[in-house]
Amino acid sequence: MRRLRPVALPDLRLTDGFWTRWQLVVADRALPLQFAQLEKTGRLENFRRVTRGDPGGYEGYFFNDSDVYKWLEAAAYAQTRYPSVVLSGLIDEVVGLIVAAQEEDGYLNTYFQLGHPGLKWRNLVSLHEMYCAGHLIEAAVALKESLGEARLMGPAIRFADLILSRYGSGGQIGYCGHEEIELALMRLAYTTGNDAYRDLAIRMVEARGQRPSLFQFELDDEEAMTLSPFARGMMSRNGEYSGEYSQDHLPIREHSEVLGHAVRAMYLYAAAAQIDDSALQAALKRCWENLTSRRMYITGGIGPSASNEGFTADFDLPNLTAYAETCAACGLIFWGLEMLAATADSEYADVVELALYNAALAGISLDGERYFYTNPLESRGNDERKEWFACACCPPNVARLIGSVGRYLASVREDDFFIHIPAAFEAKHVADGVDVLVRLESDYPWSGAAKIFVEPAEPVEFALYLRIPGWATDVETVLPGGQEADFEKGYAVFRRVWEKGSVLAVNFVMEPRWVECDQRVRDNLGRVALTRGPLVYCAESSDLGFAPQLLSVDPSLPVAAEAGFGGTTALVVDALAQPETVINHLYADVDPVQGNRVGATFIPYFAWANRGESDMQVWIRSV
Amino acid sequence: MRRLRPVALPDLRLTDGFWTRWQLVVADRALPLQFAQLEKTGRLENFRRVTRGDPGGYEGYFFNDSDVYKWLEAAAYAQTRYPSVVLSGLIDEVVGLIVAAQEEDGYLNTYFQLGHPGLKWRNLVSLHEMYCAGHLIEAAVALKESLGEARLMGPAIRFADLILSRYGSGGQIGYCGHEEIELALMRLAYTTGNDAYRDLAIRMVEARGQRPSLFQFELDDEEAMTLSPFARGMMSRNGEYSGEYSQDHLPIREHSEVLGHAVRAMYLYAAAAQIDDSALQAALKRCWENLTSRRMYITGGIGPSASNEGFTADFDLPNLTAYAETCAACGLIFWGLEMLAATADSEYADVVELALYNAALAGISLDGERYFYTNPLESRGNDERKEWFACACCPPNVARLIGSVGRYLASVREDDFFIHIPAAFEAKHVADGVDVLVRLESDYPWSGAAKIFVEPAEPVEFALYLRIPGWATDVETVLPGGQEADFEKGYAVFRRVWEKGSVLAVNFVMEPRWVECDQRVRDNLGRVALTRGPLVYCAESSDLGFAPQLLSVDPSLPVAAEAGFGGTTALVVDALAQPETVINHLYADVDPVQGNRVGATFIPYFAWANRGESDMQVWIRSV
Repeated sequence: MRRLRPVALPDLRLTDGFWTRWQLVVADRALPLQFAQLEKTGRLENFRRVTRGDPGGYEGYFFNDSDVYKWLEAAAYAQTRYPSVVLSGLIDEVVGLIVAAQEEDGYLNTYFQLGHPGLKWRNLVSLHEMYCAGHLIEAAVALKESLGEARLMGPAIRFADLILSRYGSGGQIGYCGHEEIELALMRLAYTTGNDAYRDLAIRMVEARGQRPSLFQFELDDEEAMTLSPFARGMMSRNGEYSGEYSQDHLPIREHSEVLGHAVRAMYLYAAAAQIDDSALQAALKRCWENLTSRRMYITGGIGPSASNEGFTADFDLPNLTAYAETCAACGLIFWGLEMLAATADSEYADVVELALYNAALAGISLDGERYFYTNPLESRGNDERKEWFACACCPPNVARLIGSVGRYLASVREDDFFIHIPAAFEAKHVADGVDVLVRLESDYPWSGAAKIFVEPAEPVEFALYLRIPGWATDVETVLPGGQEADFEKGYAVFRRVWEKGSVLAVNFVMEPRWVECDQRVRDNLGRVALTRGPLVYCAESSDLGFAPQLLSVDPSLPVAAEAGFGGTTALVVDALAQPETVINHLYADVDPVQGNRVGATFIPYFAWANRGESDMQVWIRSV
Repeated sequence: MRRLRPVALPDLRLTDGFWTRWQLVVADRALPLQFAQLEKTGRLENFRRVTRGDPGGYEGYFFNDSDVYKWLEAAAYAQTRYPSVVLSGLIDEVVGLIVAAQEEDGYLNTYFQLGHPGLKWRNLVSLHEMYCAGHLIEAAVALKESLGEARLMGPAIRFADLILSRYGSGGQIGYCGHEEIELALMRLAYTTGNDAYRDLAIRMVEARGQRPSLFQFELDDEEAMTLSPFARGMMSRNGEYSGEYSQDHLPIREHSEVLGHAVRAMYLYAAAAQIDDSALQAALKRCWENLTSRRMYITGGIGPSASNEGFTADFDLPNLTAYAETCAACGLIFWGLEMLAATADSEYADVVELALYNAALAGISLDGERYFYTNPLESRGNDERKEWFACACCPPNVARLIGSVGRYLASVREDDFFIHIPAAFEAKHVADGVDVLVRLESDYPWSGAAKIFVEPAEPVEFALYLRIPGWATDVETVLPGGQEADFEKGYAVFRRVWEKGSVLAVNFVMEPRWVECDQRVRDNLGRVALTRGPLVYCAESSDLGFAPQLLSVDPSLPVAAEAGFGGTTALVVDALAQPETVINHLYADVDPVQGNRVGATFIPYFAWANRGESDMQVWIRSV
């Protein structure tokens, strides 16, 4: 299998006005504020307590170490693009704390070290022990690859080796209730060249869902379970062990629908998608199809239910109560990229782009100071972003996503170069030993026009793959030398000898589009949503002056684009607004009133809830 | 204050086809099956264990005794109307079990007697100790008043006296986390003539919500709280004691909105409405207004939220997830009757009628064998009635409601006779010492036409008050001797000397009506509901052959009434049905398709979910 590989982050420089602004906001505002929260909430102090030999007194949730590691990964990406002395100092400090807290044998988890040393490895089902280890490993790899800062690599490898010694081939397998270690081991194997890590990841992926389940044994360990009183309930269905919550319900090769905790499912599948096995890939395609054709919000948000932070049933996509966790959108993006890497099929890039520009990005405020954990598609004015959460997985996750967004724009496959998302960047590429600079200019996502400059050091043949976005109904291209493109799995392919000064101009015509939903999603019957390019739009009372639930629209009327707040493009729609009438005692005989004709402003979904309390709606009633 | 009093149940004989069928179903099917459940689930065995002196081994929830008492009350009513040797034997058996289990000092609560004798009276906040006592008292009174069976009166009085000795005037006050004892003590005072019970009920009503709260002290009793680990959470808001869940947030005179657990709130207010105090009545009117103009479903269902089984915020009335507990509808009916009794204002009778014919009655299947605990206004096919519940408050509550429905049809106020609901009945009345038979003939709720025959033993003057239903837009009356009615608080008043053979004919013209909702209820925007007379209608896939969510209706088109299943009147509507199209990957450009014109059958809401799994909807999209 010839997989697509991301361009190494240091080799891809974003020049895109949209993403560079986000990366700057994350580097300048989000990461220093997140660091302050890590300190204030005892997450860093937990490491110091271990180093001091100060047992007890662990603060916070059992998985809080992972927030530190994820922050570090995000900081590594930020520092690559926007080096700052302040952030550099913070990174140093955190790396030092981590290194100091590690035990002789490589073990590192302050929750267990401080309060429960006797329970290590006995409650994998609930206590995120290897989930935390995974994020340590990812942080170490990110620091090394992005900044050349290798101080955490040794500790990460020692911890990985400890896990390998426990669960490596030949012995008893162990895997974590919350997937992540699999992704980390894959990444560590790639960086170190040591395939033992990858083999262990594969063992973990395949062991999950086998019977008897490791978790079933663990749930009988009364002492270990005192730390997670809800574990049995979460892992059961109708009083029987099911394992769905942690994707332990069936061996992965038998999966055909997405179940349980959404982030966990995404991380599992993102790891599994890296395994070259046709039966496994077939299972992943079934799950992908189930997710994207039956269980995904139009924003790319996934996992509608709060009770399991995850999946429910086909076509169950309530808007007001949508959970659609920010981390789940990140997870979908991770998985999508791996499916894209395995298949080079633009279907996956379409979903990656959708979740990236909508569901995931809605998780952070425009100023980088506040976050959404859940991302509903309707609000009645009582949703606001928070500075932090007791369970703070989302803020550093969206920060590392933004920091590494280049990964989703372009890839290489041997000599060939893939452009998935036409945001502006400059990338170093090597084709047949020849250095090539690929430069893309655009105003994406506000315009679908782009120019791609290919600058080889000397003439060299390779193929440039350019994704035709799924949303594009009309594509205009001016090809170098009038060459006709080939088309392959949703990509326009230009295979030729590239010379200096080659310019490919393309225009994915970006008109506002009214979209409807499959009628099996009962919540969206009689409703339409407005999109433009990769962006889903919503209406907010901040613009309208009244609740958007009172709007109804006629999708046949024209929609105008205009400059919106915060550098966005807003859309103005000719709509009907129901007057705000009040009925005595709630119910009355129908009294048809004509709505008021208004020009209703819609804004990108990711930008909602940035101007104080606001009612919001994505799916608008259609007349 | 001249209060309305119900006609004593034995003096009011229902002849109404609608309610006699329900009463027969309850007597014949529901009560024997409920008895079998009481036995099967250990509810009766708990009493036997106490009598045997067999400590430990209590089965079920701590409030399970109350289900036995409520069954007994329902059985007393049923036996009055449809005497059966079988039911008589069961009543005897249950009365015997109860009598035998009582302690010397009058105490009776098998949960505490069997497992926690040391914790009596120490966890009033959570353990329903006096709630159970209240239902014992109500059962005793019902048995005596309906059947002349007085064996439980002594035990009930002894228990009441024990409570009186603990919490009567002068000493420390105690009240129960779940209101009910107040209603029972009021009823016991009325039956026995001993006002000490009423005074204690008033003390309890007034003590609730004072600070410091009794419950706050209790919550610090660690030993007692081990039995109710969630009590602190339920009684708190943002980490502080609030008491809202049990209406302990403010003294009742300061209440202005309905809060917390819906059944509890209704029972409190039903008791308080029996107290003749203008400031208290003003508070109750504020709460009533809040409830009926901002927090009540069109069915009369109340309490939208599962998490507190109760109230949330104004205009928060989701249809699909509506909790709308059957018992809460019963409670609203109880409260409404007391407000009506205090004011003689038909506004209260309107709501009583609404909740009775819709929200409450939906709680039991047409065959009397299955129940709904929650009563949503939309279903996507996964709601079905159950034979019983672990928490089984609703089945016996709806059974006792149906058995005592006569209470809601007519009342007396000294010599005057009130007809609230024109269902057919015969009632014995005494005016100025003269026996009067009042007989009403109708086919309510299927027709609004009624004839009222007034048969005095000799000519006698009194006023007949006839409610003009709030739903009636057109009233035709043929008055005896051409007399003009006076109108008073929504009642047509006929004051005259009645003679033998007086007949009053009335027709409340009963046309189908499309109703809309105040736009602040966002869930119902763009939607209409169909009603006819006191009944709210819904559409079910059982009739349509497809989900009613696909329907849209034009409220200006005519609606036809026709005979429906199970003796109901169905309504047939000229509607548009969206074709069941499937969209690849859920979302697609809007493609306007013409709906199919169909004749859509609507059925009374109370009759839904009686023909297998079905999608259902009350609020239909309007074109």
